[in-house]
Parts: sequence; C-alpha cells; structure tokens
Amino acid sequence: MFSVYEVIKKKRDGNALSKEEIDFMVMGFVKGEIPDYQMAAFLMAVFFKGMTAEEAVNLTQCMVDSGEKVDLSAIKGFKVDKHSTGGVGDTTSLVLNPLVAASGGIVAKMTGRGLGHTGGTVDKLESIPGFQVELPKEKFVENVNKIHIALISQTADLAPADKKIYALRDATATVDSIPLIAGSIMSKKLAAGADGIVLDVKTGSGAFMEKYEDALALAKTMVDIGELAGRKMVSLITSMEEPLGFAIGNAIEVKEAIQTLKGNGPKDLEELCVNLGANMLFISGVASSMEDAFKKMRNAITDGSGLKKLKEMVEAQGGNPEAIDNTDLLPKAKEEIPVESPSDGFVRRIDALEVGLAAKALGAGREKKEDKIDLGVGIYLKKKIGDEVKKGEPLAIFHTSDEKKFAEAKRRFLASYEIGTERVDPPKFFYAKVDKNGVTEM
Amino acid sequence: MFSVYEVIKKKRDGNALSKEEIDFMVMGFVKGEIPDYQMAAFLMAVFFKGMTAEEAVNLTQCMVDSGEKVDLSAIKGFKVDKHSTGGVGDTTSLVLNPLVAASGGIVAKMTGRGLGHTGGTVDKLESIPGFQVELPKEKFVENVNKIHIALISQTADLAPADKKIYALRDATATVDSIPLIAGSIMSKKLAAGADGIVLDVKTGSGAFMEKYEDALALAKTMVDIGELAGRKMVSLITSMEEPLGFAIGNAIEVKEAIQTLKGNGPKDLEELCVNLGANMLFISGVASSMEDAFKKMRNAITDGSGLKKLKEMVEAQGGNPEAIDNTDLLPKAKEEIPVESPSDGFVRRIDALEVGLAAKALGAGREKKEDKIDLGVGIYLKKKIGDEVKKGEPLAIFHTSDEKKFAEAKRRFLASYEIGTERVDPPKFFYAKVDKNGVTEM
Repeated sequence: MFSVYEVIKKKRDGNALSKEEIDFMVMGFVKGEIPDYQMAAFLMAVFFKGMTAEEAVNLTQCMVDSGEKVDLSAIKGFKVDKHSTGGVGDTTSLVLNPLVAASGGIVAKMTGRGLGHTGGTVDKLESIPGFQVELPKEKFVENVNKIHIALISQTADLAPADKKIYALRDATATVDSIPLIAGSIMSKKLAAGADGIVLDVKTGSGAFMEKYEDALALAKTMVDIGELAGRKMVSLITSMEEPLGFAIGNAIEVKEAIQTLKGNGPKDLEELCVNLGANMLFISGVASSMEDAFKKMRNAITDGSGLKKLKEMVEAQGGNPEAIDNTDLLPKAKEEIPVESPSDGFVRRIDALEVGLAAKALGAGREKKEDKIDLGVGIYLKKKIGDEVKKGEPLAIFHTSDEKKFAEAKRRFLASYEIGTERVDPPKFFYAKVDKNGVTEM
Repeated sequence: MFSVYEVIKKKRDGNALSKEEIDFMVMGFVKGEIPDYQMAAFLMAVFFKGMTAEEAVNLTQCMVDSGEKVDLSAIKGFKVDKHSTGGVGDTTSLVLNPLVAASGGIVAKMTGRGLGHTGGTVDKLESIPGFQVELPKEKFVENVNKIHIALISQTADLAPADKKIYALRDATATVDSIPLIAGSIMSKKLAAGADGIVLDVKTGSGAFMEKYEDALALAKTMVDIGELAGRKMVSLITSMEEPLGFAIGNAIEVKEAIQTLKGNGPKDLEELCVNLGANMLFISGVASSMEDAFKKMRNAITDGSGLKKLKEMVEAQGGNPEAIDNTDLLPKAKEEIPVESPSDGFVRRIDALEVGLAAKALGAGREKKEDKIDLGVGIYLKKKIGDEVKKGEPLAIFHTSDEKKFAEAKRRFLASYEIGTERVDPPKFFYAKVDKNGVTEM
C-alpha cells in the first residue's frame, strides 16, 4: 500500500511515478478514498513537474480502465478515427469521414456536442432533417459493415475517472498541463475502440494551445500514448489563427461541408480534410503510400464519391438525403444581415475564439450542456486574414433570428477583427506532422 | 470580489498577490467558503512559486488577525521572546530566559509541548515537582512585573487560520515552503505579543531546514515579517548537525539546564544561550552594546543570578525550588543503562533526528498530542562528533523504565551513529546572524 502523501511528494520533487502509484492515486480518488484536496495538490504538482511518456501512458490507461470500453470487434477491418483539439468553424468531420469511407477506410465514430466557443459534430448532423445521432449498437455495427461509415452520439460512460479529474482541474487552475490534457483526450479516444487515430492539434489564437511548442509537445505525448497502447497514430499540427473555412454555425457548416465535397469549398478546409484523410487512409493500410493516399482523397472529391457516401450515411441514419442536394431543406435563420467593415485596409488579425463566442451569442452554441441551440443561425465570413476590405464592405454575413442576440454578437465580432493599412500574408496553415518516427515539418 | 480560480492561476503563473487577494483566500478558507481542494492547489502553487516579502507579511498578518492576540500591555517595559525552529535536546529556554531576566530583560513567554522528535519546554517544566504551567492571566502579569519572568503553556487560540492551513499542508506535501513556514511561525509569535523576538533557525541533519541556504532564506523572511509588523527582530542560524548539549529528555534536560546555569554545562549549549540571550538583551535596550550584552549574560552565570532567577520562577509558579538544588527530587527512570560503541574510532556523524526519535521511543516524547510521556526517561550522550571512542565504551547512558522500549530505542540510537577510523573536527556551530541590517557571518 502506498502513502498518498509520499506519492504527492514524489511528484512534487520531480520524480517519475510507477504504474502502481498512478493507479493508486487515480482509482483511490475515483472511489472516494483519496480526498479531493490531496488530488488537487497532486494535480498542481503535475502541472509544475510534468510526466514522462511512460507516466502519461499509465495515467491514460488507468482512466480508460475506469469505465466502459467500446468493443468494435464485430466490425471487420481497420477502424480509423480522427480527433481535433477543438477550434472554430471546424467542419472537417462532415467532409473527411465520407471521403475516407468512399476511399476504402472504415469510420465507426462516436462524437460529441458543442460547448463554449467550439461546435460539435452531433449538433451539425442534427440540422439534417430526420438524421438519427443515436443508433442501437447492432444498427451501428450493421451500417459500418455495409457502407463503411456511421457517425453517432457518444452515449457510453467512457473514462469516468477523466470526468471526475477534469472537474477538479477546472476548479484549481490545473487544466493547462500537457500530460493531463493528453491523458484526458486519449483516455476517451482509446476507450472508443479505434485501431488508428489521426489527431489534429490546433495552435494559434483560437486554439487551446496558443503556442506552437505547446501544441507540438501535446501532439508528441498523445502519439506516444496511442502507440504504446498499440494503436496506429499520426498527429498534424495546424493553424487556428483564424476560423477554418467561412461558415461558423450548424446548418451553415453542413452546407459548407457539402460544397467542399463538391470541390467548391474553402481551400483551407479542403486541404485540411485531404491531409488528415490521407493520413487516415495510410495508417489504415488502404493506401500503398502517402502519395497514393492523397490521390485517393482528391479523387473522392472530383468523382463525387465522397458526396455520395455522405448521402448514403444520411439515408442509413434516417435522414433526408434530398437535403444534401437541396440545402434549402436545412434549418434557416430568419434573416441574413451583413456586418460591415468600419474602415479601409487589410485584415491583419482575427481572434478566432472571439468569433466562436460571437456565433455562440447568436445562438449557434451553448454555455451549459442543457442549453438549447438554434441550428439555423451562424456567421459566414466574407473576409479572412490578408484580404483587402473597403469601409462598408461586409466582413461577414450573420444568419440571425433575434435582434438582441445579433447586437451582442456583432459587438463581439467587430472587436475580433483587426484591420490595418498594410498588406499582410495569410497565416501559415500546416505546421508539422508527428508520428512514431518523429516530427516532420510541413 | 475576486475569483478563487484567478487567484490560484495568478500565483501558479508566478505573480505576486495583493493584500486583498491573500485575505480573500485565507479568510475564505477559514470561513469554509473556499473548499479545501482549491486551497490545496493554491498552497502547492505557493510551494513552487514562492512569495515576495510583502506577500509573506500580508499572509502572516492575515493569520494573526484570524484569532486572539495576547495583550501584554499590563506588563511594563520591553517584552522579549525567543523562538527556535526545533531541534533535538534543545534546553535553551530553561537556561537563557532566567539569564535574560536576571540581566534586566523581561520574559513573558507562552510555550508549547513536544511533538515528534522535538521536545517541548512545557513538558520539561512539568518535571519540576509542583510547577504550574497554567496561570491565570492576572497571576502571569503579576509574576512578570515582579520577577521579570514567567513561562506558561499557550492556551489562547492564536492564529487559527494557521492551524487550519497547516493541517492541509501536512496532508498535501506543502509544508516545506519557506514563506508558508515563516508565516506559520511568525503568525503565532506576533499574536503572542512580544515587542522583540530572537529566532534560532536550525540547520543540519537534525533540523527542519537541512540546508544552510534554506535556513538563511527562512531567517530573512521571518526577520522581514517581524520588522514590517513593528517588532525588533534578530535571527541566528545555528547548527543542528548533532543534538545540543548531552541530555535528550525532560527531567534530564532540566538537570542539564541547572548545570549550565552553574557554569558546568555543555559548552555548545552555554554558548548558544549566551549568544541568543545577548541579542535579546540588546534589542530590549537593556545592554548598551553587544559587548555589554555578552558581558551581562556571562556574569549572570558566574555570579549565580541566573540560577537564582530560575528558582524564583519555580517558586512563583508553585514548584518546589529545592528540586533546583537537589535534582534527586526530579522524576527518575528505573534504570541507567550504558549503550556501548560497537567499534573503535572517531564519531563522524550523529543523525540528530534519529537520536530524537530514539529518545521518543524510550517514552520521552509523543507521537500524537494525546500521548502520555515519561518525564524521567531520556538519553545522556557521552560521545559527540569528533570524540574518540573505544569499542565497548559507552556512547550514551540511557535512562529507561521499559525493556521493550529500551531495545527499540537502542536499535535506533546505534543506527544514528557513524564511527570512522579517521580523526574529524566537531561541526561548525554558529553560521550567521540576520537582522534588519542584513546578514553577518559568524
């Protein structure tokens, strides 16, 4: 039997903990045998002293073992998943998963709702009339075996230890710790059962990890954790200096996803989806090389097979496939109001987080889990970093249904734009790729 | 109103907190409005990021204000106090306070019981037959005004915030933080009401602050806190590389104190008492110079006035003054058993902490507050660092009343001695003096 005090002290003094010591702390805390004040001191010590890769793996595995594990063994083949550390206007799931499935990958994905400034794929899918985000296990398995794709809402109690620890971190300023973030994300991903996971770690003003170095450290830690747990891992590090694509909302993001599957979407969104998806195909063993993987992804756009796959999935999950061809069938806001530039110049900076909060203020996102959201509202950007703009020209079109919410959202939105007099380049988008072989700059 | 989260984060990120933020945290915690897990995370952040002198002062003052403050205004003149950070065989209080009072200083002291490996003055005093460690306030004031000395047990609820915070630190590995230690000690000393305080900060293997640098930092912080609170402060930094003097116990330490007051005590104990006491006299304004202060202290030994003062105090507090002349009247153990050296050589090292624990194992100390102690038992050292010893020669005489306890104590004691073949010098004893003018090496 260990002493809680000694384990805290060991970490405080910068020593690595054994698997048994980590299990003792985490399970003791989950069972209520270790009081929250000792766990809080421990977490703050981890904040300052970090964890080795081995410790992070053991922490993650222990949190995985604390709850249900999704058994995907009834689904044949290599199941591949994607996870993003969260951004603004991130429509990738709706684009890349159909492309991957159309190219021979197998996507059996459980996903979540939005919270705060970040949207959630489940909410976006629910803006498709009739779409069922909850499927019985058998139907989920059947769909994936048949059409190689299903996107459903996560209902299993995955990694409850993480949930309990996260609540404590959130109250004690110990969220911003790379091994703790990595453990939190990876415990849920490992419990969700995929054989391979491609991560999209965001960096920049709209991301959780503002600095590249932190994003890189987080990506490395998560790749280590996954590989040591026997999964195939790749992580890209990409920019969240400004919102991804043009649309921030729910139905309007679905519309943007459809355009992207048709080859008419925003280039940053398309490139991100092709890159992430190519890595998914490659680790799945479906593509013979990364070059082949990229070719397959681009083909699935040009030959329309990705769009066809989205329609198949919508139909298989009870949604109206006509809404994919005729996006007027998606929920709509009452009005579309342009928000105009207060001056001439060039867009120098967009605070992506603030744009996300502006969209939330319109009603597109929620503060608390129980809050209702308005699927039709959102922000459609007309100008991004580097674009020239004239005074009075629209920076964005707001899709809005409530005057008061519009006023608040407009105030936030305008404060998030910085317009300068000098020409600026658009921000770098792809930073690096991390896998078991190391880091490759992009 | 502040946010607890933001205050934790501010400290975590290495920023200094305002007086208002510190009050908010401490009083919120004391009132139960701030949960212990947030306080625990905060304390760990303080452990890593420290506090400025100003923050430490504000923390201390806030803890002082959380409880009773002893009002010594009914006692005329400059009241001077001494505090030691705790050591093994530390008989100084029983020696220096009578010497100071005999030389014109005023000692109105509240003191504590022993815990763990450290003895307590109250326990030692109780080994004098009839001695009352609890006096009504009026009697305490009357005694000091009349004979300039009273040593009583602390009963007031001083600095309850410190008590509550200390309990949490003790469970969360956040005790070893210099500003927190300084705040804890100084809040109780300031609340105890003396006008001047001389600190004896111990360093070495038997001390809380093993490293000199830590002891120095602690001394500086405590001097800053006291001076900023309007008290006259001096701190010495002295060695606890081996037990002080020869006796470790209760009655046997009283006996050693009496010998020292007669000029026949161990030289390290005598020098320490003279040094601390001279500083007490000097800050009291009773001596015109440090030279004069030293002379007064040494005189109080040679002319017997210190011993006479001890007798006066014993009588004034209901004790039998004959016990001072005839120490056979003090409690005695059943047996005195020599513990012999296992080899020839020179004493190279004594683990003072382990010797303290050996004395505790004999019954001289307590594990928990409620434990009873045996006033007669203890260890009388015959060999200290640098002494030559022959195999079979006694390293110490154990005063013991219980065979089983003796065996355990002997085992611990022998493990604490390191005997080498080469001659070694006794350890350096005085390191430095710290006051408002800075640090002077000794």
